[in-house]
Amino acid sequence: MREPLTLSEIVAQLGGRVVGSADCRISQVGSLARATGEQISFVAHRRHLAELAKTRAGAVVLPTAFERDTTLPRIVADDPYLYFARVSRLLNPTPACVPGVDPAASVHPLARVSPSARIESGARVGARAEIGERAWIGAGCHVGEEARLGEDSRLYPTAVVYDRCVIGARVVLHAGVVIGADGFGYARDGQRWVAIPQIGRVLLGDDVEVGANTTIDRGAMDDTVIEEGVKLDNQIHVAHNVRIGAHTAIAACVGIAGSAIIGRNCEIGGAAMIHGHIRIADGSRISPGTLVSRSVRSGTYTGIYPFDDHASWIRNAAGLRRLSTLIERVRALEKRLMRKEPNSE
Amino acid sequence: MREPLTLSEIVAQLGGRVVGSADCRISQVGSLARATGEQISFVAHRRHLAELAKTRAGAVVLPTAFERDTTLPRIVADDPYLYFARVSRLLNPTPACVPGVDPAASVHPLARVSPSARIESGARVGARAEIGERAWIGAGCHVGEEARLGEDSRLYPTAVVYDRCVIGARVVLHAGVVIGADGFGYARDGQRWVAIPQIGRVLLGDDVEVGANTTIDRGAMDDTVIEEGVKLDNQIHVAHNVRIGAHTAIAACVGIAGSAIIGRNCEIGGAAMIHGHIRIADGSRISPGTLVSRSVRSGTYTGIYPFDDHASWIRNAAGLRRLSTLIERVRALEKRLMRKEPNSE
Amino acid sequence: MREPLTLSEIVAQLGGRVVGSADCRISQVGSLARATGEQISFVAHRRHLAELAKTRAGAVVLPTAFERDTTLPRIVADDPYLYFARVSRLLNPTPACVPGVDPAASVHPLARVSPSARIESGARVGARAEIGERAWIGAGCHVGEEARLGEDSRLYPTAVVYDRCVIGARVVLHAGVVIGADGFGYARDGQRWVAIPQIGRVLLGDDVEVGANTTIDRGAMDDTVIEEGVKLDNQIHVAHNVRIGAHTAIAACVGIAGSAIIGRNCEIGGAAMIHGHIRIADGSRISPGTLVSRSVRSGTYTGIYPFDDHASWIRNAAGLRRLSTLIERVRALEKRLMRKEPNSE
Repeated sequence: MREPLTLSEIVAQLGGRVVGSADCRISQVGSLARATGEQISFVAHRRHLAELAKTRAGAVVLPTAFERDTTLPRIVADDPYLYFARVSRLLNPTPACVPGVDPAASVHPLARVSPSARIESGARVGARAEIGERAWIGAGCHVGEEARLGEDSRLYPTAVVYDRCVIGARVVLHAGVVIGADGFGYARDGQRWVAIPQIGRVLLGDDVEVGANTTIDRGAMDDTVIEEGVKLDNQIHVAHNVRIGAHTAIAACVGIAGSAIIGRNCEIGGAAMIHGHIRIADGSRISPGTLVSRSVRSGTYTGIYPFDDHASWIRNAAGLRRLSTLIERVRALEKRLMRKEPNSE
Repeated sequence: MREPLTLSEIVAQLGGRVVGSADCRISQVGSLARATGEQISFVAHRRHLAELAKTRAGAVVLPTAFERDTTLPRIVADDPYLYFARVSRLLNPTPACVPGVDPAASVHPLARVSPSARIESGARVGARAEIGERAWIGAGCHVGEEARLGEDSRLYPTAVVYDRCVIGARVVLHAGVVIGADGFGYARDGQRWVAIPQIGRVLLGDDVEVGANTTIDRGAMDDTVIEEGVKLDNQIHVAHNVRIGAHTAIAACVGIAGSAIIGRNCEIGGAAMIHGHIRIADGSRISPGTLVSRSVRSGTYTGIYPFDDHASWIRNAAGLRRLSTLIERVRALEKRLMRKEPNSE
Repeated sequence: MREPLTLSEIVAQLGGRVVGSADCRISQVGSLARATGEQISFVAHRRHLAELAKTRAGAVVLPTAFERDTTLPRIVADDPYLYFARVSRLLNPTPACVPGVDPAASVHPLARVSPSARIESGARVGARAEIGERAWIGAGCHVGEEARLGEDSRLYPTAVVYDRCVIGARVVLHAGVVIGADGFGYARDGQRWVAIPQIGRVLLGDDVEVGANTTIDRGAMDDTVIEEGVKLDNQIHVAHNVRIGAHTAIAACVGIAGSAIIGRNCEIGGAAMIHGHIRIADGSRISPGTLVSRSVRSGTYTGIYPFDDHASWIRNAAGLRRLSTLIERVRALEKRLMRKEPNSE
């Protein structure tokens, strides 16, 4: 955390307009429910107004529409949530990377490590790996042979990057992330499986962020590619030869099967599943828990079994196993009625 | 494993009543199917009686109702499964924590480590972290700056606790667990995403147990809170600002989205998914694979697509895409019949 | 990568028949779309023929049926995909294990490590563990006390094997794999949970391969058993006392609950869920995303909610909650018509 800022100092840096005391000093962000007098909060939707009336925050960010809904010192901004994100970054700057290789790290003599990079204890960097400026490799991480890590990237403890994978600038890999493990590729030989060498790489573009324990497999022959600005939450599985377009955001627990192509600017809800060898168009939205089994054009797609109390579910789910029969029965009824009164409709 | 115990020594410690030879010596627990003569097994349900008839166990724990269903030495207990759990703990005590910091561990000079704690090779403990009495930090673990670890807690190898997170007493984190990675919070700035600093913490209450590769994200502003006695299985995703009430048990592969509030004493089945910003009442049960998309009162909830042989599934699933049309057709049929025979029902 | 091979050298080793220039030199495999002149590609299905017409590959593997569909140097093989897998292995041999224990590894003096094994920096091997010939333990791995690791097995960085687990020969564990964490076993004691000691082991047969961040829990009393040749993709959860039959292949994100028995030669699609205490017959196929809630005979099983555009889904999913009522209504209609015209059908 840094020094407190006044509202006028904030708008000097981020734009927006102060209403009320511009000298109000803010040291941190906070939720409407829990912020204290030195903290700034935000109002983005009408549903926040009840909390706004009760908040003890020292100041708030809000849109013009709600400008008169409080007497607190406030900053009026077009997109309060985005503005708030920026205020929070001002008050919580990314910690600087203190350069240095811990004596308990293992760096191969043929690795090329920028003098401004940081490598913590227990980390291992392989032969001919290239570690960019201010890259920060946490405790117990592994960066394989010939792997490349872009400037200002950060690997949290225990993240693993296999040989030859390429990580862009400002990439974040959280703990337990595995980049470049073998894709799941086998040919049948009678009853046995013969593994197909996975010789492709993983390429992560600039500004990609990857949540804890997410895994991205290397390509079978060609590469697995995650374009710039993609945000992946925790425990996502990305199979070999997947391509994810720029600025797509994917929530936790999603599974993406081999060679699927996800467009740019998509949003994929948690625990969705994407079949292999299909194409999701740019800008698509996939609802949580939805299994997408064929290529789709841009749009919003859903396939969730609606939950119910258990007894109701049993009643209705049983019907699902007879649904095609039910359709036949309705058709039969229609025919019988049609025969009896052919002119009635 | 420790010295064998006689049945009378067991009941002296745990209660219950011996029937048959109280001098029978038991060195381990075992399943009815595989236990040997030095092992004790248990019978909790009528469906175990067939196995009881054939078991080679040296003794069994069972309820009064089945007391006469065997001639084996036996302990009669009200809740045989719970009793058996306690016998097993007697015979398999938690291994004692041998104190000491491995020379190949990296402990920051400003960390406060109890002399009775154990820190294995490759582990790293950050500045101002506090490690409680008899806490056991396995090989390759990471405990971040200012994090706190309660007494008798155990981190299995490679578990990671990020900065400032607070872990209670007697907590167990299995290998690959990640506590306190950043929540998935971004604001849109045109086509790019701006990360919102995740400044909250994770608080784990006493006696919480967390399975392998489960991840619990830190709060965006307020904390993510797991109350005492919560048991989480493997590969669970807990998003930022979730709150899980005391003694709730959650099976593997569950995903819980941001700011969901799960009550106390709930049981959530494997691979269930809980939407964000909803509330699951105390004592609720969620069936495996169920996606819960709105707040629910106490009860049992299910939403599973009933599986079938593939051909039947194709037939019925196709009908699901025409279900609303089918309902219209049935309504039309009802109207036509009503018109023809308005007084018949 | 090794020296280039001519087509005649390849068929000398692997069989098959060359058509065209047998002297064509091949240094690598490649996809039809991206292969260059020194690379060999393959054609397995009619749908590849369009790409074959445009490929710049130096040679291809194909079946007799397509032998005349190209003028490229080619190898004709009965099963081109399997053949191609073998060619790829010829050109990309598994890297040899360079023996040696890194000085930054921690090997217990009572561990028995083959002189041909390799143990990288930060790895830890516990007391009385046995490490077989040419076994390769990557950076930051943990092999517990009395664990056994078969010959030619490879643990990628951060893989963890708990105490007493047994790993066969030629096993591959990718990064983040956890073998032998405690199963999720608790008995209720009023509102609290009492952990049941998990004293079984995990046994992995020969040639088992396990993808990144997959977890396999140790048995409660008996062992969890994965038979030879089983292939597990990433982020799979295998609960305690599961048994998986030989040569079964399981795609990513699958969850298998406690004591489930999966047969031999099964194929289980991604994100499928298998209930506990059930039996999946040998040779079964489970579709992706399917929850299997009871034992099944050999066959193909599916239970997927068919996704749709969001508006259509809303319309139809609402109907699902009234499905049993709809069935009643159809039955009522049938009765009324039957009463009116009892002899008509």
